[in-house]
Order: sequence, then structure tokens, then C-alpha cells
Amino acid sequence: MITVPKKIVDLLQENQTFILIVHQKPDGDAIASAVAMGKGLKALGKNVEYYIDSAFEEKLHIFDEIAFFNQLTQKHYDVMLFLDTSTFEYAFYPKNITATVKLVIDHHKSNTFFGDEHFVEVVAACGELVFAVLQALKVPMDEEIAKAIFTAISTDTGSFQFANVTSNTHEVLAEIYKYPVDFSSLSKRLHTTKTFNQMKLFGIAIKNLNLFCHERISISVISNAELNAYGGAVNVTDDVSNIGMNIDTVIISATFKEVETAVYRVSLRGKSPYPIDVSTIAIKYSGGGHLRAAGFTFYKKPEELLPELEALIEGME
Amino acid sequence: MITVPKKIVDLLQENQTFILIVHQKPDGDAIASAVAMGKGLKALGKNVEYYIDSAFEEKLHIFDEIAFFNQLTQKHYDVMLFLDTSTFEYAFYPKNITATVKLVIDHHKSNTFFGDEHFVEVVAACGELVFAVLQALKVPMDEEIAKAIFTAISTDTGSFQFANVTSNTHEVLAEIYKYPVDFSSLSKRLHTTKTFNQMKLFGIAIKNLNLFCHERISISVISNAELNAYGGAVNVTDDVSNIGMNIDTVIISATFKEVETAVYRVSLRGKSPYPIDVSTIAIKYSGGGHLRAAGFTFYKKPEELLPELEALIEGME
Repeated sequence: MITVPKKIVDLLQENQTFILIVHQKPDGDAIASAVAMGKGLKALGKNVEYYIDSAFEEKLHIFDEIAFFNQLTQKHYDVMLFLDTSTFEYAFYPKNITATVKLVIDHHKSNTFFGDEHFVEVVAACGELVFAVLQALKVPMDEEIAKAIFTAISTDTGSFQFANVTSNTHEVLAEIYKYPVDFSSLSKRLHTTKTFNQMKLFGIAIKNLNLFCHERISISVISNAELNAYGGAVNVTDDVSNIGMNIDTVIISATFKEVETAVYRVSLRGKSPYPIDVSTIAIKYSGGGHLRAAGFTFYKKPEELLPELEALIEGME
Repeated sequence: MITVPKKIVDLLQENQTFILIVHQKPDGDAIASAVAMGKGLKALGKNVEYYIDSAFEEKLHIFDEIAFFNQLTQKHYDVMLFLDTSTFEYAFYPKNITATVKLVIDHHKSNTFFGDEHFVEVVAACGELVFAVLQALKVPMDEEIAKAIFTAISTDTGSFQFANVTSNTHEVLAEIYKYPVDFSSLSKRLHTTKTFNQMKLFGIAIKNLNLFCHERISISVISNAELNAYGGAVNVTDDVSNIGMNIDTVIISATFKEVETAVYRVSLRGKSPYPIDVSTIAIKYSGGGHLRAAGFTFYKKPEELLPELEALIEGME
């Protein structure tokens, strides 16, 4: 189990008022880490408020604690606690609010140590660190905290399938499973359940998928008409961007969403462990991303990107 | 951690020749439990042979130990060890081979205790029991055993998402993750990777899916022509049978594969926790199954099944 520095435990124990902050476009790990940490601190008698004034996925609306988000009553807090947030620029924080100490609890390798105090360990999810902190603080767990820790870890590991999973991740789950939560239904909600429109757009992305370059490149295009037939791009789920990666022969995949007529939102993916950096193409078109996942907006016909994808494949040979 | 009865540990320690047997149509849990148990017993100096003379999924062909399957050199063994096998009828066992003791290690609630000695506990996977046995025998683990235990548990739990997962399941994984295996790539192979043809048939099942009865029933039909366009029914992956279950409003789903002209292989699914027994329909058509999952062959048009599905929905109101 991960050891929490005494300084961090003391800081949480010795202070009384907390404002919790997460990153922009909060995901499952961010929302659920905030819920678990907030409820845990409240269980110790602390005053906890949340500044999480961003929309987030419907599937995450499963915590009673969300009712307390964005009800700030103070201008100054003892501790401004940043969760799952790697840089200050990426934080979603309130203006005109001050705090005595800025504390950062995060699991990103890229963390810039932008606070006053830090508990940063590269683990699968911020929720894994929050669990360690709650244990160190001897917080009595409840079902909502167990549900939140599960949600944080399950979403950030693709249901325990990503390379970030370690022995410690499963140790945390072994503890969490001691609470009477229907984790199976929760898993389905987080990972497999779709609306009819989401399912249909997923099917269209498969129908329109074609292979190129000796089956090593996949391209799928969802037209504007197809998007509109099923409620628009908002119904294209994250897994659509990965469809090509799930085909055994494919090394690079590109998914095009025609969000407006002749305007394409493109997701590029590269398969590990091939020596490919798809972000080079994304950056050329003013987008961004990482080695294996990048995105940008494209104003030409999808097939015009193919030579650039082929060049990446050829470059690795 | 699960306790293995001393009698079982003694039986394995005190005997020398073993023949390992699994159930018909062996799945990931069966194959991988056999590999882990076989390699573990060999590490203790035992003579182990395998009678697993059935075809199994390509994705499971990842163990060196498979090379030793079906090379029987004896007519009599000390122990005939049945793994993951709930009934003698369901076992795939060799004729004209005898054993001094029939030992059953299984995790099915429906186990009929058909052997001489039994280690039966209702846990997520037989692999979970095999791990407990190997620990009790103090077998030195290796990477292939770790990979096998992972495969057994990961496949039988739908990547840790089914209701059979417990704290103990994750405890086992916490141990298994201490070995240097690329579990993430293994997960992808077991759960998400498809061939192009498998992906296309998955997409067709979504394209042809329609909702009925206030969006509570889904029916998807894959025609014989569509099957043939992508290599036949062998390329329809298991997840196709569950597509309807993944839609938020659906309670009963039916997937029809037209395996020959006008002959449909039907998979029925019912969503938990609704009080529905889809096996009643399957049994009527000489098929079989459980409350939530059943199958049969249908010789009429798919739409002719709809009234019976609607009657199930109405019956629960």
C-alpha cells in the first residue's frame, strides 16, 4: 500500500476549511476523487466546499455529494486542494478566492508541482492516492466513498485493462469490495451502457471503417448527415476513437467526425509498442496530443490525410 | 484468501501421476486453469498429462504448455483431476482411461459432486481456486502461471465487471501483478481485439438492431448473406449476443444469426434485476440456458418471435 507523507496527513488533520478543485473537463477520476476526499474530510468534521462548475458526463451523476458542488460560502479557505490536476493552467479554479495553503494530490507524471505542498505519485488513478490518504486519516469508509474510489480507478484504467494498473491498484479494490455496493451494475454504467443513438453511431463508425496500407491503417468517417440522424456529435462515445485500434492488424487509426459540412474533427491513435508518434500530424494541423493519441480539426477530404498516415508507417520501417 | 482443505493438499502432494480434464467447449477459465494447475504440479516434480482434445478460441493460444495437451502415455493415472467442470456429463473425458482417485476442483454453484474428492467453492473463476491450491502447495510461480491465472479470472469476470467478482478476486490479482507480465496487452487480446471481419459483423449487428415495446425489447438479425460476406458465423464474437443489453432502455434482447437460409441461431438475454426468465422461450424451442441468457434454433421469421418477447415483458408488470 502507498505511504502518505506525514506532512500531508498533518496538514489535512490540522486545518478546518477546505475548497476542492479538479481539472477542466472533469472525468471520472476527477469527479469521484473529489467526492471521496470531500466526504472523507467531512467525516472528520471538516468544512468542505467544492468548486466544480463544469458539465460532466451523465454516467457520473451517481453521487449524492454532487448536490454540494458549487455552493461556496467563503472568500478564504485554510486549504485549496487540487485533485487529479497536473498543472495550474489545467486547473479549473475560482477567481477572487484565496487560501492559506495550496495542496496538490495528483497521479500524473507530468505534474508541475505548482502548489505549496504536494502528494504526487505516478499510480493508475488519483482515486488510488485519495484512498491511501483516507486510510492514513483513519476515515470511516461508507458506501458512497467506496463507490467513488471504484469509479475513479475503474474509469482511469479502462476497467483494469490499461498499462497503469499495478498490484497496489488491485489491493485497493480488494479493500473496496468489502463494502456492499453493486459494483457490477456500476461497471456496466461506466463502461458498456449506451443510449440507442450512441449505439447506432458506434455501429456507423464500424460500417464506414476501411483498411489501407496492407491493413495497417484504418480510416472511419462519420458524415454530418449520419451524426444528425442520431442526435449529433455529442452522441459519439469515446470508444469510437479507438475502434480501429481494436482490429488486430491496425497500427494507426483515424476517426473523422464531420461536425459541420466539410469540417472534420479527427482522432488519431497509434498502437503500442510501435515506434509511432501520431501527435506530429495533429500538431501540424494546430491540434495536440500524445505519442499514441492526438486530435485536430481538418478542412480537407478525409482521404487527403492518407498519404501522411502512410508516411508515418513507412517512417518506422 | 480462500483456504484449501488439508485433504486436497495432501492428495495432490502424495500422488505422482495426473491427468487433467476440463469441460466441453473449453473457455478461458478452463484452458488457463489447466495450464496453471499443470505447470504448478510439474514444478513439484509430478507427471502431468492433459486430455483437452477440443478446439478453443484462437485468443487463448498463448501458453507454451498447450504443446503438451493430448499426449497421453498412460492407461491409468493416480489422479483424474476435473477442472471448471460442474457435472460428469459436461466433462470432456477420455474413454478407456482409469484413475485411482477422481478429484474435482470447480467454482460452479451447480456442481453435482460427481468425483471422489472435491474442492468446490463458488468464486469468480476456477482460476481463483487453482491459485489458492498453488499457494497452499507452495509452488514457485512463474510468468506463464501468472498469465494463466490472469486469463482465467479476466475472461470469467468480463474484465472484472461481472457480479461474481469479490474482494478475494482482487486479492489474487494483487499477487499476480507482482510478476513481470504485460497484462495490458493480454487484456486487449482477451477482450477487445477483433479481426476486420469480426469487427464488421459486430457493426452489422448494431446496424440491424431495432427497438420494440417502448424501447424495452431489442432485436437484431444478421442475414446469411451478411454472415457470408465476412467469413461466416464463426466470426460473430460473443459480445454480439449482448449488444442489446448494452442499451440503457432494453430489458430483453434477441440476436438472430441466419446460419443457413431461413434457419436462425437465436441468443436471448434478460437484464438484471428484472424478473424475467428468457430460458422459458428457449426451452419451448428445444434450446436451453439460464434466467438471463438462453439460446435455441428458430425456423420461422425473426419478427414472429416478437409476441413471445412482449408476453415476457407484460408478464413482469
